[in-house]
Amino acid sequence: MKIAIAQINTTVGNITGNFEKIISNITKAKNENADLVVFPELTLTGYPPRDLLIKKSFVKKNIEVLNQLVDFTENIAIVVGFVDEKNGNLYNAAAFIKNKKIVEIYHKIHLPNYDVFDEKRYFTAGSTTSLVNFKGVKLGLTICEDIWIDNGPAYDLKKKGAELIINISASPFHAGKEKIRLNVVAKQAKENNIPIVYCNLIGGQDDLIFDGRSYVINCKGKLVQQSKSFVEELSYVSNIESKNEIAFIENENKSIYNALVLGVKDYFRKNGFKNTVIGLSGGIDSALTAAIAVDALGKDNVRGVSMPSKFSSKGSISDSLDLAENLEIPCDVVPIKDIYNSYLKTLKTQFANTKFNVAEENIQARIRGNILMALSNKFGYLVLTTGNKSESSVGYSTLYGDMAGGLAVISDVLKTKVYELSRYINEVKGKEVIPVSTITKPPSAELREDQKDSDSLPEYDILDPILKAYVEDDLGKEAIIRLGFDDAIVTRIINLVDRNEYKRQQAALGLRITSRAFGQGRRMPITNRWKDD
Amino acid sequence: MKIAIAQINTTVGNITGNFEKIISNITKAKNENADLVVFPELTLTGYPPRDLLIKKSFVKKNIEVLNQLVDFTENIAIVVGFVDEKNGNLYNAAAFIKNKKIVEIYHKIHLPNYDVFDEKRYFTAGSTTSLVNFKGVKLGLTICEDIWIDNGPAYDLKKKGAELIINISASPFHAGKEKIRLNVVAKQAKENNIPIVYCNLIGGQDDLIFDGRSYVINCKGKLVQQSKSFVEELSYVSNIESKNEIAFIENENKSIYNALVLGVKDYFRKNGFKNTVIGLSGGIDSALTAAIAVDALGKDNVRGVSMPSKFSSKGSISDSLDLAENLEIPCDVVPIKDIYNSYLKTLKTQFANTKFNVAEENIQARIRGNILMALSNKFGYLVLTTGNKSESSVGYSTLYGDMAGGLAVISDVLKTKVYELSRYINEVKGKEVIPVSTITKPPSAELREDQKDSDSLPEYDILDPILKAYVEDDLGKEAIIRLGFDDAIVTRIINLVDRNEYKRQQAALGLRITSRAFGQGRRMPITNRWKDD
Repeated sequence: MKIAIAQINTTVGNITGNFEKIISNITKAKNENADLVVFPELTLTGYPPRDLLIKKSFVKKNIEVLNQLVDFTENIAIVVGFVDEKNGNLYNAAAFIKNKKIVEIYHKIHLPNYDVFDEKRYFTAGSTTSLVNFKGVKLGLTICEDIWIDNGPAYDLKKKGAELIINISASPFHAGKEKIRLNVVAKQAKENNIPIVYCNLIGGQDDLIFDGRSYVINCKGKLVQQSKSFVEELSYVSNIESKNEIAFIENENKSIYNALVLGVKDYFRKNGFKNTVIGLSGGIDSALTAAIAVDALGKDNVRGVSMPSKFSSKGSISDSLDLAENLEIPCDVVPIKDIYNSYLKTLKTQFANTKFNVAEENIQARIRGNILMALSNKFGYLVLTTGNKSESSVGYSTLYGDMAGGLAVISDVLKTKVYELSRYINEVKGKEVIPVSTITKPPSAELREDQKDSDSLPEYDILDPILKAYVEDDLGKEAIIRLGFDDAIVTRIINLVDRNEYKRQQAALGLRITSRAFGQGRRMPITNRWKDD
Repeated sequence: MKIAIAQINTTVGNITGNFEKIISNITKAKNENADLVVFPELTLTGYPPRDLLIKKSFVKKNIEVLNQLVDFTENIAIVVGFVDEKNGNLYNAAAFIKNKKIVEIYHKIHLPNYDVFDEKRYFTAGSTTSLVNFKGVKLGLTICEDIWIDNGPAYDLKKKGAELIINISASPFHAGKEKIRLNVVAKQAKENNIPIVYCNLIGGQDDLIFDGRSYVINCKGKLVQQSKSFVEELSYVSNIESKNEIAFIENENKSIYNALVLGVKDYFRKNGFKNTVIGLSGGIDSALTAAIAVDALGKDNVRGVSMPSKFSSKGSISDSLDLAENLEIPCDVVPIKDIYNSYLKTLKTQFANTKFNVAEENIQARIRGNILMALSNKFGYLVLTTGNKSESSVGYSTLYGDMAGGLAVISDVLKTKVYELSRYINEVKGKEVIPVSTITKPPSAELREDQKDSDSLPEYDILDPILKAYVEDDLGKEAIIRLGFDDAIVTRIINLVDRNEYKRQQAALGLRITSRAFGQGRRMPITNRWKDD
């Protein structure tokens, strides 16, 4: 049996577009004499459709289109994901369609309802596993989470006589996830002595980035075939047990970088945007963001803006212009001095007898936000924000200022990782893309005289592991101190993280590349008097 | 048996503070010779604790404090809500503590996981109902959702011999909810022929507002006692079946207004804010917001700012000053003309040969946002945003402009309801609080020459019912047209709603007063190609 693994990039809500993509993959697979084509989870609706599932017209349309799809399966079989509806209940479902007939519908049994997943909000869990006899082989159907469960559906299917398990997934990327996921699927194959064809989604959907990397694993739990990461691919497999084990290759920086590029690319493409404008400060965050944008959108679609103030260092402009030159993008220089002075003049009465404080600092950041948004509104650019996860965690950023924009590219990347990725880019490009002086100078917001990040925050090699422990691993204060950090610093940092929840809840959507990004995967109250001490 | 119903205002995360509030209520109830004190759902942690529940130290602390609470129950019994933990699973639990002993722990069986509720994200469902023998009466314990289930826990408890059902709830308010909730609880009492003591939370928690209004219902399903709405109350009941039915009184505008006042009050108090600054445009939205703020925070804690531009009508300033005078609050007049001109001058190169468009409009709105935030940063005020639900639905607002602020007071109030509430205030206050000219003039954003809302949008009495149908009732396009609306208008409006999801996801937290507010209760993808046609 020749199986085609259609690792495709669906779009949420675009039922007709997803349908067309399915048909085009069926046609290709037919030309290659495939017997069966496997598509990712919820192929027709895209994943995750979220509250679109509450709209009856949406669910109805997906079922109509499923029925149209049946006509395109002459002399071939497909496994396709859709939303099934029975007696008012919805199911995350897989249809096995063969030669113009739906021969089996499987309802996902294990519904994830943690982290970024809300499947119990919408779906009723299925209760029985599904076996399909196809060309003399007993195929077991599973959907995503099903394969993560020990003694779960895979075990049950094997007991019922399954000879091959098909899994259709929408398993989002985070750094390190590839390896975890492979281990899980391989363990199921090995423990149940059954090969698994695992088809994963690729593509960016808001904060989530699906990496593809579909696996074929033999009954000994060995990886024998793997689709590419972060791109669509239609690949084929037959005679699984005759294939040799291949090496699983992992390069964290490469994965993260490619994930971010795909996240930006798909956010623009799927939302109908083409161009971006980015505020360049001469610092490393905006430099990395611009480099990612150029790889995602092409240099002709990226415009930089340097907006110096009287507190800006010389390097602020020159490093921005160097970056723009390296990336071959235009960079406007728009000084904000006059606008800033007119704010101070206008607010003279209100600010009389007060000292320069965060108010004056933030006025500058918000002038920059206003300028970028004005360019956005004038020319249809989407503004990318440039804040990193360390800043976002402790609130070292200005709401409506540097936080203004449509997509936060590196808001899930800790500052130390921002440096790593920047060096990685220069390395893989084989030239200085991100100016060396941008990488080596001490980071600063440049909103007051001689300001440095280190005036307000511990060094990033202290800050970042504390943030990882608190935000990503949900450790309490005691547990973090036991990792070897200073009590006072830990207390201060976790208070800052808690206190700045209100800012993050107004932040632009941020691309998720860790196991716990801010956003839908971390649902903290703003009104929160919890003090872990 | 004398039961005290402790309808208290807990704070999420403030386990120690909630503990102290519980003790003070026990003390008062003892002085009144009560036998039993009943507290609302998750009394110790506050409701909803959301992802705080993922922190082990948080759950541990709540159990420690529960155990401390035991010492305060000499000669009295209490039913208190807490988070239980068994073998790594969490339960939404009620402890029955009597004379210094925990005699029963009940685990909530029905976990809501729809709308604003995410209980399956955290909790494992309990499997058996709990009966407690207390002073010769068999008490059945239930938690919130349990009582909403037909043939559910109430039925089961009655079958087991229960003579009275206690329900501890955290049931959030929305307009019309009081009546729905009463009907549900009354139906359970009547069908199972058993009295119910229903203790509901009161207080604001971020977007959610809990209205209290705890019920005592006799075994015939008649309401015989009811606690006040939107305030804390410790009330007592005994001999339920001997009490007469009382009338349930509902006044929608009063409820909504009180809900908004409490929502503002608690957001400020629980987050440590005292003062607000509000941009006053002379329009009805900012007027209503300011009136609510004065009732919530006191007139000494509210400051208005009028920020006229060259496009502002005369009424913009005079109506703002009239409002401020009526509310007895100060109102600064801060013209934005000079700042606006300095933006245009600074952006002259970039804007050369372009026409005045939404870019110039939004620059003005964002200057106002920057000024309000500067006052916030300088003086510690929290900025209240003033946008209504009609605007927010169709994106008739400026991100980082009029949308800048910490709390959106009326973002769940449709424009037609904004008018109703404004008239309601003037009526109950017995004087002109909101200037009549503000109520009668045609609404306008005043961001360009002679602009009116009706240039861009249908009249609000057409728009609002379409929005209600689409946003609150999730009807599809066909179904809305069948209600009698024009196809083209409906298509245009639902496209606007869908397209502006990105704005709403960066909006300030908005107080929820309908069954479907934007925010955590409506989880739409931004990247969304669904077109309902």
